[in-house]
Amino acid sequence: MPSKGSKKTTIRDVARLAGVSTASVSRYLNGKKGAMTEQKAQNIQAAIQKLNYVPSFTARAMNNNASKMVAFVVSNIEDYFSVEIFRGASQVLENSGYVTVLMDTNSSLQREQELLESINQRSFDGLLLQPLTNDAQEIAKRAVRQFPIVIMDRELELSAWPQVVTNNYRASYNAMRDFVAQGIDEVVVVSSQIQSASTRRQRYQGIKDALQSGQSLKTIEFNESDFSVEEVLNRLRRMIDPRKKTVLFSLKERWLLNFLPPLMREGLITSENSIVTGFADTNLIESICPFARVISQHPFTMGQRAAETLLMKLKDNDQAVPGLQIIDATLKDLSEGVAFKTLNHSF
Amino acid sequence: MPSKGSKKTTIRDVARLAGVSTASVSRYLNGKKGAMTEQKAQNIQAAIQKLNYVPSFTARAMNNNASKMVAFVVSNIEDYFSVEIFRGASQVLENSGYVTVLMDTNSSLQREQELLESINQRSFDGLLLQPLTNDAQEIAKRAVRQFPIVIMDRELELSAWPQVVTNNYRASYNAMRDFVAQGIDEVVVVSSQIQSASTRRQRYQGIKDALQSGQSLKTIEFNESDFSVEEVLNRLRRMIDPRKKTVLFSLKERWLLNFLPPLMREGLITSENSIVTGFADTNLIESICPFARVISQHPFTMGQRAAETLLMKLKDNDQAVPGLQIIDATLKDLSEGVAFKTLNHSF
Repeated sequence: MPSKGSKKTTIRDVARLAGVSTASVSRYLNGKKGAMTEQKAQNIQAAIQKLNYVPSFTARAMNNNASKMVAFVVSNIEDYFSVEIFRGASQVLENSGYVTVLMDTNSSLQREQELLESINQRSFDGLLLQPLTNDAQEIAKRAVRQFPIVIMDRELELSAWPQVVTNNYRASYNAMRDFVAQGIDEVVVVSSQIQSASTRRQRYQGIKDALQSGQSLKTIEFNESDFSVEEVLNRLRRMIDPRKKTVLFSLKERWLLNFLPPLMREGLITSENSIVTGFADTNLIESICPFARVISQHPFTMGQRAAETLLMKLKDNDQAVPGLQIIDATLKDLSEGVAFKTLNHSF
Repeated sequence: MPSKGSKKTTIRDVARLAGVSTASVSRYLNGKKGAMTEQKAQNIQAAIQKLNYVPSFTARAMNNNASKMVAFVVSNIEDYFSVEIFRGASQVLENSGYVTVLMDTNSSLQREQELLESINQRSFDGLLLQPLTNDAQEIAKRAVRQFPIVIMDRELELSAWPQVVTNNYRASYNAMRDFVAQGIDEVVVVSSQIQSASTRRQRYQGIKDALQSGQSLKTIEFNESDFSVEEVLNRLRRMIDPRKKTVLFSLKERWLLNFLPPLMREGLITSENSIVTGFADTNLIESICPFARVISQHPFTMGQRAAETLLMKLKDNDQAVPGLQIIDATLKDLSEGVAFKTLNHSF
């Protein structure tokens, strides 16, 4: 158990008790047992446990300020997008010997502040942040020690840090222009509060700007952390007119996953009269609705790019670091959906 | 940047340069600025940056061996189940002042070994582990320093640590008995390699033992990290006989999400002739297939229980720690599916 007498235990004490060299203990601790006999390894393990020895990694971290750990903070781990940017970044950082650890702000601004303070107090080498706050100052005043930060997904105004984002406005605008050209009557946008995230504001504006006169824009907004599926469904049922050519545009995959199946069953969404689209990164939407045409943000690539940017900063290669990197989201063709064979990108 | 001259910088140096007391710097670092003037805070921030001071949390961690961080290792972050046990544990640990950080072994045994060694070398207070390995010794020889460990989801033989698991065998058996009573012809089980995880072995055995003579059991197995959706679908198409009363039993939610919509569209799965079931923790299956009856494992509760168990061990309250805790998975009634109103458990 912690706090028992290991304060002054050193690697020498362990070596002495085990009857081996400190180099052997070190090899053992680093998992490089190589040709070590099983007996020797057991002696070392017994000595470590008896003395309750804590390896000196923490001490090394203090001395050279390198924990070889990167903090990765997501706004909501239940979003597949957040999981995928983490996976992309982990892969890149792992190849450079870093461990990437994920923390979840769980859509809570207060939790975000607490986690930033925790990270600031610990020996993380860097931070990859998908922020909830729009205010760079809220981050700056908590992350006060000097360690590199890269912002992902949501754009901050007046950010001193590099940012890796999607072309939310342009991707929405281009997709809508495509649909407008097919002749549509109206668009129904489904979203949690649009004003509270830069991503949603940009997407909504792109949709709006692409419409032509005579095409109407209807919006269903709800509170992400507290709403009733049935109630939102009822609003959709009232809003969608099956005689009109309608685009159902979801600003997040999750809403499509929940609302699409019942709307299809009830004949409110059909391949003849509806265009189904939205920002989506798994292949589940196409599985549920083969005529859907979703916009993919390539979150794995975004995570990789953010990690590469962080590594440049860790190598003090500040000149080479771009301020803003935009990874283009792309509208998938119908044929692409079918070609999308493996489940790696499911869920 | 790290590694520049902060080796000997202390909180006193910061206080001196900022012209404030060390207590003020400490308050600042802990985010307790209270009545501190904005000017004072700015002076402290400037001094910290100028001296590149790293707060002493790491030093404190060394002295009392308490980082107030718990490592949470999942076998595949793309599984909603893993995300939910993390969220449950985080909530409990957060209330006790711990930060829970997630690491992903990404279904790789080698990565699991590397992460265990990393965790062993760093000052984590404890480890919550959803293991890939079946072998407790593989964990014991890497987690050599003394810190509490709790195993989740997959049962290890000869485990020295407390385990929090689901009643996989019993839940599968009971569900199947229910379906058998309705009069069925055959069961089609969909799963990644059954033998490679205790959870899958137990579930499969439960299904098998519940069947009566004359009822046949068919199995579709594939490699989780490398398979073609289309190929598995084709095998299912050949295997399911729409004239027979068939139970489609998926050992994981993900497979249902991908295979169910096309099978329903093609009339191979119907409310008249099919029973759709499987282990599933979101409400997406019911949204896609209203007559499905899934088995929920309550992963959030499992995470909470694992965290509570870890906290007991952290408080040296070893007598009170149960060796094996089983959280009962439950077969949902059709009416429950509809009552399941919020999206908190969706993806």
